[in-house]
Amino acid sequence: MTPFNKLSLLREKMKEKNIDAYIIASADPHMSEYLPDRYKNMEWLSGFTGSAGTLVITADFAGLWTDSRYFVQAGEQLKDTGFELVKLKNQGAPEYIDWLAKHLTQDATVGFDGKLMSIAVAKEAIETLQTRNIRVISDIDLIDDIWTDRPSLPTEKAYLLDEETTGKSVAEKISEIRSRLRESGATAHLISSLDDISWIFNLRGSDVKCNPVVLSFAIIEPEDVQLFIDKTKLSGDDIEKLHRSKVSIQEYDAIEHAITSLPGDATVFVDPKRNCFAYYSLIPTTCKKVENINPSTFLKAVKNEVELTHTRTTMVKDGTALTNFFYWLEMSIGKKEITEITIAEKLKEFRAKQEGFVGESFDTIAGYKAHGALPHYKATEENKSTLEPNGLLLIDSGGQYTTGTTDITRVISLGNPSPEEKRDYTLVLKAMIEGSTTNFPTGTKGYQIDAITRRPLWDHFKNYGHGTGHGVGFFLNVHEGPHVFNTANINIAIEPNMITSIEPGLYIEGRYGIRIENLVASHIEAENQFGQFQCFETLTLCYIETSLVDKDLLNDKHIEWLNNYHAVVFEKISPHLDNSEREWFKNKTKAI
Amino acid sequence: MTPFNKLSLLREKMKEKNIDAYIIASADPHMSEYLPDRYKNMEWLSGFTGSAGTLVITADFAGLWTDSRYFVQAGEQLKDTGFELVKLKNQGAPEYIDWLAKHLTQDATVGFDGKLMSIAVAKEAIETLQTRNIRVISDIDLIDDIWTDRPSLPTEKAYLLDEETTGKSVAEKISEIRSRLRESGATAHLISSLDDISWIFNLRGSDVKCNPVVLSFAIIEPEDVQLFIDKTKLSGDDIEKLHRSKVSIQEYDAIEHAITSLPGDATVFVDPKRNCFAYYSLIPTTCKKVENINPSTFLKAVKNEVELTHTRTTMVKDGTALTNFFYWLEMSIGKKEITEITIAEKLKEFRAKQEGFVGESFDTIAGYKAHGALPHYKATEENKSTLEPNGLLLIDSGGQYTTGTTDITRVISLGNPSPEEKRDYTLVLKAMIEGSTTNFPTGTKGYQIDAITRRPLWDHFKNYGHGTGHGVGFFLNVHEGPHVFNTANINIAIEPNMITSIEPGLYIEGRYGIRIENLVASHIEAENQFGQFQCFETLTLCYIETSLVDKDLLNDKHIEWLNNYHAVVFEKISPHLDNSEREWFKNKTKAI
Repeated sequence: MTPFNKLSLLREKMKEKNIDAYIIASADPHMSEYLPDRYKNMEWLSGFTGSAGTLVITADFAGLWTDSRYFVQAGEQLKDTGFELVKLKNQGAPEYIDWLAKHLTQDATVGFDGKLMSIAVAKEAIETLQTRNIRVISDIDLIDDIWTDRPSLPTEKAYLLDEETTGKSVAEKISEIRSRLRESGATAHLISSLDDISWIFNLRGSDVKCNPVVLSFAIIEPEDVQLFIDKTKLSGDDIEKLHRSKVSIQEYDAIEHAITSLPGDATVFVDPKRNCFAYYSLIPTTCKKVENINPSTFLKAVKNEVELTHTRTTMVKDGTALTNFFYWLEMSIGKKEITEITIAEKLKEFRAKQEGFVGESFDTIAGYKAHGALPHYKATEENKSTLEPNGLLLIDSGGQYTTGTTDITRVISLGNPSPEEKRDYTLVLKAMIEGSTTNFPTGTKGYQIDAITRRPLWDHFKNYGHGTGHGVGFFLNVHEGPHVFNTANINIAIEPNMITSIEPGLYIEGRYGIRIENLVASHIEAENQFGQFQCFETLTLCYIETSLVDKDLLNDKHIEWLNNYHAVVFEKISPHLDNSEREWFKNKTKAI
Repeated sequence: MTPFNKLSLLREKMKEKNIDAYIIASADPHMSEYLPDRYKNMEWLSGFTGSAGTLVITADFAGLWTDSRYFVQAGEQLKDTGFELVKLKNQGAPEYIDWLAKHLTQDATVGFDGKLMSIAVAKEAIETLQTRNIRVISDIDLIDDIWTDRPSLPTEKAYLLDEETTGKSVAEKISEIRSRLRESGATAHLISSLDDISWIFNLRGSDVKCNPVVLSFAIIEPEDVQLFIDKTKLSGDDIEKLHRSKVSIQEYDAIEHAITSLPGDATVFVDPKRNCFAYYSLIPTTCKKVENINPSTFLKAVKNEVELTHTRTTMVKDGTALTNFFYWLEMSIGKKEITEITIAEKLKEFRAKQEGFVGESFDTIAGYKAHGALPHYKATEENKSTLEPNGLLLIDSGGQYTTGTTDITRVISLGNPSPEEKRDYTLVLKAMIEGSTTNFPTGTKGYQIDAITRRPLWDHFKNYGHGTGHGVGFFLNVHEGPHVFNTANINIAIEPNMITSIEPGLYIEGRYGIRIENLVASHIEAENQFGQFQCFETLTLCYIETSLVDKDLLNDKHIEWLNNYHAVVFEKISPHLDNSEREWFKNKTKAI
C-alpha cells in the first residue's frame, strides 16, 4: 500500500466515525523517544522516519509537523505521499493544536488515540479546542483498523542487573521514591516511562532499538509495588528475585484494570509528560492527583558511586574501540572504498569486541563534508558519500554496555584542512573546553552552562542551533532527563553526580559540520562562605584531532586542558592497543 | 504613637470587622517601587523603612516578610515594635500567603486593601486561601481609620518634555501601543504604572522620591486616550499640548468611574503585575481580559536614537561630577572629618552643578569597609562610619537629569589595600569586563548574560547574591523592566538599544564589599548565516581604580579593554576639569 492509499483508507474511517481531524503523534503508551515497531504509526502512514513528528489529517489536508533537525529529510521522504511538511517553530511544541483551532469550524470533531499522547499535550489540546467549541474524542485508534499487518508487541527476553552493577537495590530505590511520594502527599504512583521503570527495578531488555528497556508499567503504593510486564520475558530466577524485593508481578495488559481499581480516596502522583492521557483518564474521578516530574527521573539522573566507577571503566572500553577504529580508518583511507555506511558498521564491529557491549546507544551519525552540516544526518544507500583523502568527517556515535552508556562526537580531517575549517574546529573545541572547565554554584541551571559554552563562538559571531548537552543514562537511554544544557529556561538545577554531554558545534551548509562531544560528571569541588561549588569531570576518553587546531585561537588554559586530557587518554587507552596502534596513538595525543 | 500602640489599634479594628488576618503590602495603587508618603503604611505601622516588604497581622502574631537585602536593617528597626522579621526565601515572592494558609483555621477571614496589591499577587492569595476555605475580603483599608495624620497625596508640579528630548511624540507612542493592542485582540488598555504613563505622555514630575513621575492613570482605546491626573499640576500650555495630541484629561479620582464605564463588550488589556487588584475588580464582568506585560513597558525599554544621544551627553556630565567628587575626596581624606553621610551630600553637590540635574536617581549607598558588604546599606547618623586613610570605600549612586538617568558603582582604596582586597577587586572587574565585552545572538535572555558575567568569580569559587543588572529608564526610574540580568529563568530577550546595568560584586562580611557597575546599551553588531548578533556599548564614563588591580589575574583582552576604556574616559571628561584635577585624572586613567 502506498502512503496515498493508506491516507484514503484513513479518511474513509474518519468519515465513518464523523471525525473531521485526526492526530497521530510519534509516541507509544510509555511516551518513549524510540518506539517499538507496533507504534510506528507515523512512519507507516507517511513514510517519514524521523524520531519526532506529528501527523494531522483532515478531509482536505494532511500535514507532518516536525522540527528543523528533520526539514531536509522530511522534505524528501514526504514527496508524493499526500503529506505536507509543516515546520515547527519550537522543537517539541504541539503547534498543530493552534492550527486545528484556526482551521476547523465550530462543532467540528477532532480525534486521537489517548494512549499515544501525553497528559500534558492532550490537556492542552482539549482545553484549546473545547474553548472554540470543537469536540475532542481522545480514545479512538483508527490506525489499528487499517494497518492489517501491524507488528505485535516485542517479546524479547529481559533480565535483572545485580547490585554490583547498579550500586543500589530495588528496595532502596523504592524506599527513596516512597519518601518523595510522602513529601508530596501522594498515596499511589503510576509510572509508564520505560527508563524510569528499568532503573527502579534494575531491569533491562531489548524491546526498543538502542534503549535497553522493557515494555512495562508500575504502580508504587505505601505498602505494595506492582510491575506490569509480559512475564514470559523474565527467567524464573529473576521473578523470584523480584518477589524477594516485594514486587508483585502482573501481566502487562493488567495495567488498565489496576488503574481503575486504585482506591477512590488515593492521591495519585503522575508525571504529565511521562504518562499517556488514556491511562490518566482511567484514574477514578474521586482520586486527587499530584502532577510533577517522576521522583525516579530525578533519582536516576544522580548517579551513585558504583555507576560512576562502572562508567569510567566503560569509557576505557569505548575509547579503545574508537582508537582501534580511527587507526583502521586512517590506515585504510585511499586504499579501499569506505562510505559513511561502512564507517558505522566498522565502528560497531570494534565496539562489539569490547566485553559487555550490548549494542549502539543510537544510530551512528557519520557525516562527510557537507553531510556533516546536517546534525541528525543518517546515511542511506541512496545518499551515502564515499570518503576521499580530504575534507572533514564528523562521527557521532555511542554504545550500550552492561556497565554504562556512551555518546561521543569527534571530527577528523581526511587531508588538506582549510584555514576556515581549522578556525571553526578550534572555536568549537574552545567552547567544549570552556563548558568542561567551568566551576558553578550548586543551584546553577543548564541554561547557564549553555551560555558559558557558547561564549567563544559568540565572540566570533557564530552559533549552533541545537542544545549544548543532555543527560545520559547508566546502561539506559542516551537521552535522559530531567536536566539539559540548552538556551531554554528549564528550571532544573545541575546536581552533583549527574552525567551530561557537552557538545557544541558549527555547521556550514553545503560544506562541513563540526561537533566535539564529551560526557562529563558533575562533582562538588568546594564549599565556602559563598556556597557550594561544583565542577565537571570529563568521562569520555578519546583523542581530539590536533592537526585541526589553530593554536593562536586558544589561550594557555585551553592548551593546558587539551594536553592534560591527552596525557590521561594516552595513559588509560594505550595499554589496550597493539604496538603499531600505540605508536600512531602517541602522535595523536602528543602535547601541542 | 509607638508601633506598639498602632498595632493595638489595628487589632481592635480587625476585631470590630471580624478580620482574623490583615495584609499590608509596601505598594500604592500604581504598584510603584518608591511610594508617595501617603502609602507608606508599612513604615508608619512597623517603623521598617526598606523598599520591599509585607506585613501580616493576626490576633497573636505580627510579622514583616522581607528579603536578604534587608535582614540586618529590619532586625534593628523592628526591635520593640511587636513585629517579627520573617525571612523571605525568594525576593519578591508572596510567601506570607502560604504562611496564612498554614496558620489560619478554616472559615477564618483575611483582609487587605486591593488598591495596594497587584492583580497577580491578589489572585494567588485568593486562590490559595479559598481552596482552604479561608474567606478573603479584598477591599478593606483599616489603616485609614487609625492613621489620623496620614499625609495627603502629593501636589507637585508636572511638565511635558519636548520631542527634542524624548525623540518620539505622544501620538507616535500611542499609535505603537494601539498596534500591539490590536495584535492581542484588546479594545481597551488600563495603565496604572507611573513610569509607563510618564513615558507614553512625555510627562515628568516630582510626586515620588528619586523617580520623576506623576500620580496618574491612563486608558487607551482605539479612538480615545484618557489621562487621569490632578489637573492643577499641569500648566495651561501643557494641557493645550496634550489636547493637540488628542489626549483627554480627566481628574485623577475619575479613574474608578471610567473603569466601571468601559463598554461591556470590551476586551481589556491589563498587566497583572502593574495594576492593582481593586481597579481590576472594577472592570465590568462582561468584558474579556488580556493579561500580559504592558506594551509600553517593552517599547520604553528599547531606547530611540535621541534618547541614546542624550544619555551619552548625560554620562559626560555625570562622569565629570564623579571625577570632581573623587578628586575632592582624595584631597580631603585625613584632612577633615568625612563620613559616609558627608559623601552622599558632597556627591549630590557636585552633580547639582551639572546642567539639567534634577535629583538623585536613588539614595546613595556609601559603604566604608564592613558597611560595603551590605549591598543596600544606607548610612544613618547612628551607624555612619568616618573615613580613615585606609580600607575600601564602595559608592553606588546615580542622578536624574532632564536628559537621562545614571547609576554607577565604584570602589576606591583609601590606602594600604590587602592582597585579598586586590584579588577580589580584580575578579569583580574581570566579571564586569566579561559581561561588557560579550557578543550574543538576538534572542539571548538576561540569564545567559548573567552566567557569562559570573564565570570569572565562579572560577575562584566566589559569587554574589544579587542580580547582575537591571534595565534603566531615560530620565525615568532607575529600575526599569521588563528585562533583567539575573539567574532566574525570566524569558525576556535582550533587544537592541536597551540600557542595562552590569554590576557584579563580592561581599566579605565584616570586612569589605566590592561592586563595579557600568550602564551599557545593546546594539546590533553583525548579521550572518548564524543569525543576528548584538554587543554592548559602555555608556558610563568614570575611571576605575587601577591601584586595586592585580594584573596577573587579567588576560590581555581585559587589560586592553581597561586601557581603551580609560583612554575614552579621559578624552571625554578631561575637557571639563580644571588643571589640577586634570593632572590627577591623567594618572587615574593611565594605561596599566
